[in-house]
Amino acid sequence: MSRKNIVILGSTGSIGQNTLQVIEAFPERFNVLGLAAAKNTELLLEQARKFRPKYCCLMFEESFRGYEAQFKETGCELLWGKEGYKTLASMNEADIVVSSMVGAAGLIPTISAVEAGKTVALANKESLVIGGELVMSIAKRTGAQIFPVDSEHSAVFQCLNGEDKAKIHNIILTASGGPFWDRSLEEMENARVEDALNHPNWSMGAKITVDSATMMNKGLEVIEARWLFDVDVEKIKVLIHRQSIVHSMVEFKDGAIMAQLGSPDMRIPIAYALSWPERLALEVKRVSFTDIARLTFEQPDFERFPLLRLGYEAAKRGGSYSVALNAANELAVEAYLARRIRFGAIQKVVSGVLEKIEQRDCKSLDEILYWDSLARLYAEDMIGRTES
Amino acid sequence: MSRKNIVILGSTGSIGQNTLQVIEAFPERFNVLGLAAAKNTELLLEQARKFRPKYCCLMFEESFRGYEAQFKETGCELLWGKEGYKTLASMNEADIVVSSMVGAAGLIPTISAVEAGKTVALANKESLVIGGELVMSIAKRTGAQIFPVDSEHSAVFQCLNGEDKAKIHNIILTASGGPFWDRSLEEMENARVEDALNHPNWSMGAKITVDSATMMNKGLEVIEARWLFDVDVEKIKVLIHRQSIVHSMVEFKDGAIMAQLGSPDMRIPIAYALSWPERLALEVKRVSFTDIARLTFEQPDFERFPLLRLGYEAAKRGGSYSVALNAANELAVEAYLARRIRFGAIQKVVSGVLEKIEQRDCKSLDEILYWDSLARLYAEDMIGRTES
Repeated sequence: MSRKNIVILGSTGSIGQNTLQVIEAFPERFNVLGLAAAKNTELLLEQARKFRPKYCCLMFEESFRGYEAQFKETGCELLWGKEGYKTLASMNEADIVVSSMVGAAGLIPTISAVEAGKTVALANKESLVIGGELVMSIAKRTGAQIFPVDSEHSAVFQCLNGEDKAKIHNIILTASGGPFWDRSLEEMENARVEDALNHPNWSMGAKITVDSATMMNKGLEVIEARWLFDVDVEKIKVLIHRQSIVHSMVEFKDGAIMAQLGSPDMRIPIAYALSWPERLALEVKRVSFTDIARLTFEQPDFERFPLLRLGYEAAKRGGSYSVALNAANELAVEAYLARRIRFGAIQKVVSGVLEKIEQRDCKSLDEILYWDSLARLYAEDMIGRTES
Repeated sequence: MSRKNIVILGSTGSIGQNTLQVIEAFPERFNVLGLAAAKNTELLLEQARKFRPKYCCLMFEESFRGYEAQFKETGCELLWGKEGYKTLASMNEADIVVSSMVGAAGLIPTISAVEAGKTVALANKESLVIGGELVMSIAKRTGAQIFPVDSEHSAVFQCLNGEDKAKIHNIILTASGGPFWDRSLEEMENARVEDALNHPNWSMGAKITVDSATMMNKGLEVIEARWLFDVDVEKIKVLIHRQSIVHSMVEFKDGAIMAQLGSPDMRIPIAYALSWPERLALEVKRVSFTDIARLTFEQPDFERFPLLRLGYEAAKRGGSYSVALNAANELAVEAYLARRIRFGAIQKVVSGVLEKIEQRDCKSLDEILYWDSLARLYAEDMIGRTES
């Protein structure tokens, strides 16, 4: 068995680090071909020393300054910028491209990988949130396989396990409800950053953890599922499941429901995406049903979590609406994390931007980037006026 | 699409009747070729009038007496006895043979169907409990496909969905715990037949409902799973799940667990066995997670349910031990239903018989039948001495 060459776009983030853990545990299966990070030079260097990739990439050439010799010692070639990402995403030697950048910035490298017909382990949900129609149409043309790395979408993928989508009655995305599930709107209004980052079950990056607190994350996942599995939005349900053991389900038209369960550990969906159709013998904490004793389910609350409602709306409308939703949310969360705005202002910024956005199709990259930029302008303006 | 010709061996029982409901709902897919019942002539006639099978079969020719003209009017040909069952099980025109007789009596017709290379929808778990090694080896030779109709084994089959058994970490068979889950051994000792037949979730035949009350049923299912999925007994776990919504699970070596859920309705696994790899749009009650609110799990209690422990023991030992376990249990349950012995005596009869049985392999039908007969002699003797 020849080893698979892996490129990780976003190797210093949470998914990137978990991916390297999986690779480290199976050196006979995987080889790290290239690592790309936005700006965490120190960690990238550490990873380069350990995994000896052929290429290392940072977003800015300056980030390498003073580190050149040390990277050189690891034997890697240096790349940088969007061109560097593009090169890595589409290189001939790459078998699997892990797309794990944060935010809309992941779209272009993901398109490069899909355009090159690579197998893509997709953790960057924004690629589908803002570019779903485009990305999936390119994948159809090039034959690129896209394996979801989100725990929910990996669960759905495993529940489907090749079954025809015509058999699907509903896709049920489970949601932990995040750290604020039990709070009132008033209590959430001024929620502290420390509390928003304190997710009950999952250890993830800051952006997605805040999205989990607003439940925007689940809204984005509805949009992602809509494209990934090519089903009507009406067939995608969200179900609150506080324990994060059932990662999602598919209800088929015969009344049977398939569910995927597991400990909340990202290495499971990552390893599945890297090794499909195999399953690797991972050393993860196993689910103990005796310890769990019970699994609970409740309906989502669209009143207290308006961003989930807007996510559904965007899933239905698509185009400029989805692009703007994502862009406005990215900036609002960034502003919240920088303590520029209150927690309750995140959804106000997003809904305020969406009110200004015309509904347009976004079938090309240019259109997506246009609406993304425009929404960012609106959002920045609104954040400035909302600042606390 | 040509219709599939279905033979139902045991059409007047619970599984048989549910099978006919599925067939009735999809007349464009299924045609009833033959129906066989033990002795319920009236119901068989009713079924013959409705479904117009080419053949009707009863175990005794006398059961047709006085009904010949009425059966003739339906246009069917009459068969009887073991030869009749054998003919039906192996006839050229049959596409699927539903094996839904009760007890060890199902073995020989099941072997006929498997020998003839038919697709077998297997509800008669005793075929595998007492003849697992034989039946599976014949199936391997003839290419007969065996689709489980037990809700648990159908769930496992759906969770596997073609995945290699090398990936299996554990098979988790769920168990409702039956009507006496919360009772002490003392309370169970004299449990009334009416209470034993009052299953909390499932509507089934009398024999299997009592087996559910003693949890022998789950023990038999462990043996069945061992043969059907060809895994070590150590990898088969039983988990109490009172709501009977999760029908069973498979834990894979990567830590992912696939579960199959659904309303407790036998039409779902029956339809799956008849239509695989399709799924039919059944009109069954759908699972409402909001109504359910929670799913609970606990460990089985081998002290209060000694027949479950003996089931595991038989799964490990196989051969004469499994055959005798099943035979002794059949007679003990029959005696309990006839109010000849107390509920608590069922397990005493079974364990008493097992103490007398030598451990021998049972690779041939003759060996199986020998130990089955011997165990029945012992059991009848012990029941006579135990009678209350």
